[in-house]
Amino acid sequence: MESNDNAGSLENSGNHRPFVGPEKVIIDTDPGIDDSMAIMMAFQTPEIEVLGLTTIFGNVSTEDATSNALLLAIKRDSSFARKVKRVVILGGAFFASGNVNPAAEANIYGDPEAADIVFTCGADVVVVGINITTQVRFTDEDLLELRNSKGRHAQFICNICKFYRDWHVKSDGVFGIFLHDPVSFAALVRSDLFTFRKGVVRVETQGICVGHTLMDQGLKKWNTSNPWSGYSPISVAWTVDVPGVLAFIKERLMKP
Amino acid sequence: MESNDNAGSLENSGNHRPFVGPEKVIIDTDPGIDDSMAIMMAFQTPEIEVLGLTTIFGNVSTEDATSNALLLAIKRDSSFARKVKRVVILGGAFFASGNVNPAAEANIYGDPEAADIVFTCGADVVVVGINITTQVRFTDEDLLELRNSKGRHAQFICNICKFYRDWHVKSDGVFGIFLHDPVSFAALVRSDLFTFRKGVVRVETQGICVGHTLMDQGLKKWNTSNPWSGYSPISVAWTVDVPGVLAFIKERLMKP
Repeated sequence: MESNDNAGSLENSGNHRPFVGPEKVIIDTDPGIDDSMAIMMAFQTPEIEVLGLTTIFGNVSTEDATSNALLLAIKRDSSFARKVKRVVILGGAFFASGNVNPAAEANIYGDPEAADIVFTCGADVVVVGINITTQVRFTDEDLLELRNSKGRHAQFICNICKFYRDWHVKSDGVFGIFLHDPVSFAALVRSDLFTFRKGVVRVETQGICVGHTLMDQGLKKWNTSNPWSGYSPISVAWTVDVPGVLAFIKERLMKP
Repeated sequence: MESNDNAGSLENSGNHRPFVGPEKVIIDTDPGIDDSMAIMMAFQTPEIEVLGLTTIFGNVSTEDATSNALLLAIKRDSSFARKVKRVVILGGAFFASGNVNPAAEANIYGDPEAADIVFTCGADVVVVGINITTQVRFTDEDLLELRNSKGRHAQFICNICKFYRDWHVKSDGVFGIFLHDPVSFAALVRSDLFTFRKGVVRVETQGICVGHTLMDQGLKKWNTSNPWSGYSPISVAWTVDVPGVLAFIKERLMKP
C-alpha cells in the first residue's frame, strides 16, 4: 500500500493521526481472500481515498511487469522515494519463521531482489511481517458474528472464507483464519494500534535463506561495515494491540 | 563441548540428570576471557572429567586444521555422529541479532560450512545461541563479589575481566560482562536450568546472511520440500533460568 498525502508519519509513540482530510492510497494486492477483505475495509474507511488498485492475478508475466514498473520508478526517478509519502508493506517475517519455508515469507520470496530495493530506497517504508499479522485471527465464532451482521459485504466475505478457513486447519493447525492484509491495512490507518521499531532491513537474495528479511535493530555498534551499513532505517511493526485491531476490522467489515 | 559418556540426554523437560559417575568431556574453545572461565568451572565440577582441551589461538592455519579434523571425522566415519554422546555448542543467534553483524554470530561466522555440517550430521547436538547467553551477565557488583570471594581462580578471573568489561561498555552499552561460555557450560551439566526446542538448524553459507543460523521450529507443515527437509532435529536452547545459571556460575567460580 502506498499513500501520497499528508498522513501523520508512523512513529513508535503510535499516536492516532488527526483527521486532516482523506489520505490518497494506492492498494497493490493479490486477489486473495484476506486481500479482498482489506480492499472492502478500505472502501468503508472515510479517512482514506482509494486512488487505485493494482491487482496481480498470479500470472508470472503480469507479476514481473508490475514489479518492474515499481522498480523502474525507484531506479529511474531519484526523487521517487521522496514523492511517495509512505509505503506500507505486508511482508517478511522478523525474528520469526517464514510461511513458504522456515526462512521466507511468501510476498518477499516472490521477488527478493525487488523487496531489497524497496526496503533500501530511502522512502518512508513501514513493513508489517507475518510475525505480527499471524497474531490476529478470526475464529469460527468471529466469522459467525460477521455472517450474522448487517455488514455490506459480510455474506460474501464469509462465503469466500470457507476454503481459506479449512486450508488453515490443514496447513497451520489453526481453527480460523489469519488476517494478513486487514492487519496491514490497520497499520496504515490506525498506526496507534501498533508499536514500531526503526532499523535497516535487507533481504537475502542467495543461498538457502533466499527471501529472508533481516533487520539491524541498532542495538550494537558494529566493528566494521556490513551489508546493513549506510542504508536508511525503515519502520518495522513490533507489537500489535490484538483486541484493538480485531475490533477495528470487525467494525469496518460489519458496517452496513 | 563434546561429551561421550552416559549423560542424561537434554530434553525439554529439563530434569537434572542423576549423578552416574563423571561424564567425559572434551572442551574446544578459543582462549578468550569467558572461555577461560568455563574451563576453570569445568575443573571445579566433579560431575565431569575433562578428557582434553582443544584450544585455538586465533591462528587461521590452526583454526582451519582443527575444523578440518572435526569435519573429517564426520565425513570419513559414518558412525561418528552415533559415537559421540552429545555435542554442546555455543554459537548462533536464534530469532535474534548476531554479534559480528545483524545476521551472524562470531563462532558460526568463522566457518559457516563446517557449522552447517555439524548441525546436520545426525549427532545429538545441543546449541546455545547468544540470544540465550547474553541474558546472563556479570555486573560490576558480581565481579566485586567474585574478587572478594575465596574462589581458587577468582583474582585471576577478575583481573582478566577488566579489559573485557570495558569493551562491553563500548561495544554493547552493557556495564558488566556477558558469560557466553560459562552459560554454555551450564547447559552441559545443568540442563535443568534451560528449556530446549527441537528443530532442524541450517547455516547460510552465501549472500549477505552468511553465517546466519535458521531453525525450522516445526510449527508448520510445508507444502514442498525445502533446505531444512529431511535432516535430524537438534536441541536449541530456548529459555534460561537466569538467576539459577548465575548462582551456578558463581558457586563454581567461588569454590576454594
